[in-house]
Amino acid sequence: MNPDQHAFNLKKYLEEQRIKVEKALDRWLTAPEDISAPVFEAMKYSLMAGGKRVRPILVLAAGHAVNSDDSFLMPAACALECIHTYSLIHDDLPAMDDDDLRRGKPTCHKVYGETVAILAGDGLLTYAFELMTDPELNNEIPPATLSHAIYLMARAAGVYGMVGGQTADMQMEGKQVDADTLHFIHTRKTGALLQASIEIGAVLGGGTEEEIRRLGNFGRNLGLVFQIKDDLLDIEGDQEKLGKPVGSDDRNRKATYPVLFGIEATKKKARELLDQALAELEMFREKGEPLQAIARYVAERDR
Amino acid sequence: MNPDQHAFNLKKYLEEQRIKVEKALDRWLTAPEDISAPVFEAMKYSLMAGGKRVRPILVLAAGHAVNSDDSFLMPAACALECIHTYSLIHDDLPAMDDDDLRRGKPTCHKVYGETVAILAGDGLLTYAFELMTDPELNNEIPPATLSHAIYLMARAAGVYGMVGGQTADMQMEGKQVDADTLHFIHTRKTGALLQASIEIGAVLGGGTEEEIRRLGNFGRNLGLVFQIKDDLLDIEGDQEKLGKPVGSDDRNRKATYPVLFGIEATKKKARELLDQALAELEMFREKGEPLQAIARYVAERDR
Repeated sequence: MNPDQHAFNLKKYLEEQRIKVEKALDRWLTAPEDISAPVFEAMKYSLMAGGKRVRPILVLAAGHAVNSDDSFLMPAACALECIHTYSLIHDDLPAMDDDDLRRGKPTCHKVYGETVAILAGDGLLTYAFELMTDPELNNEIPPATLSHAIYLMARAAGVYGMVGGQTADMQMEGKQVDADTLHFIHTRKTGALLQASIEIGAVLGGGTEEEIRRLGNFGRNLGLVFQIKDDLLDIEGDQEKLGKPVGSDDRNRKATYPVLFGIEATKKKARELLDQALAELEMFREKGEPLQAIARYVAERDR
Repeated sequence: MNPDQHAFNLKKYLEEQRIKVEKALDRWLTAPEDISAPVFEAMKYSLMAGGKRVRPILVLAAGHAVNSDDSFLMPAACALECIHTYSLIHDDLPAMDDDDLRRGKPTCHKVYGETVAILAGDGLLTYAFELMTDPELNNEIPPATLSHAIYLMARAAGVYGMVGGQTADMQMEGKQVDADTLHFIHTRKTGALLQASIEIGAVLGGGTEEEIRRLGNFGRNLGLVFQIKDDLLDIEGDQEKLGKPVGSDDRNRKATYPVLFGIEATKKKARELLDQALAELEMFREKGEPLQAIARYVAERDR
């Protein structure tokens, strides 16, 4: 077989998945015509303000790797985007990072005010679990499988995952951190939800224990690559491309891999983690191609 | 049978249930020895800062009404207390009600700062769903039953329930509201989670459809009685007993039943709703006694 014959078109794959996800998000989040409408508007504003839909696409790609079709995966894909978006809304609040812009657009609290932004974050987090258990959306998934996926999601989003990582990050702001602390923050703040996205896709897609384990390892490494690359981009990036001030983390003296280890060592680390991630995908052969291509893209992206 | 022979001792029942709930909360929330510890401490500070444990006790009492034992009910009971506590932490934030005191103690953000308080709320909300799906805690519950209970919980806590009600309440602050709007706010902001507590107890306890429906109706009426009584207490209450300034809602010109209908008509409404609630419990005979007594207590409490 000539590898060129099935050269995987990542751009096309990502675009197709992104459109499916955004259609589902649009369909499953409809503001009611009552006085609670502002919170829906704020939720939808942030949810539809762009973004690469990395987490939902990872759910789909992991599910595809174990031969699942989208109907088993899409509610969880959207749920993870709701959780990711809630975390952005709350992170941007004045009491947190105090950011006015996100993806080049005014942040939720700049448009709707702090009160509604807090509630919109709360609403999105809760809505994730509504999506996961809505009987109209999930009636084909074995309930025990669903419950396992919800546990992975809650665990990765909560105090043992993203919330814990965010807390640690805020605690260490402006302080000297060592490599272990940095690893703790990175694996929890961003890595946990990325890894969970992949595991959840594997679980809901009906993967074997071996497949779920392999994809989980892939996800853990991918999460680290993602965060390390973010740190590199934050130092090297171009303000216009990113839509946020370059070096803002550095200005606030937040710990990052490049600050701690230097740029070249950090780049080397990212390459090693990428290789480890790719090795976990071998058993999936061509069904793992989307995840392979995504991992390479995450490691090599310039924004 | 002489009714006095089994005169129900509510005080003893509430105390017994409260102690069980607090033991479980204490056992299931343990701060790790790492740099995410502050968020656990803040979660636990607010969770253990007192309170009547109304929602967990409603889960247990509804479960008892359908012959369940505590092992099926306790994770959900604790989960609902986590959700209730998160809502208090976020409601007290400067961007929301800006309260310095809660149950006579400094609010979460006064002790831990706004950043950690936002994260502690997020952590507690997420932890509720961890508790519901933790395989070590819920292995005896049929997964389909569990998924149904999680849906009821998320729905009641989210934009169609508490978050929607809180948004509506904030939107209408300082504005004239009509009876329909007030009803919308009351049923969602407080009522939804109270009703869900009872329904979730009935569902996890293995109740029949008829039992779940009856207990759901009971819960809806109880939720309204609870809110109406809160409004009455806010006007009539005694600052020392409540631990917060009397009439603060009125000062902020928030809509309440007494403001809209007058005190006497509001008291009459509460009595009618109590009677309707009690009527739903008839089929449960003596197994419904704890819920009967709780409903009477909610309607007649002086704090």
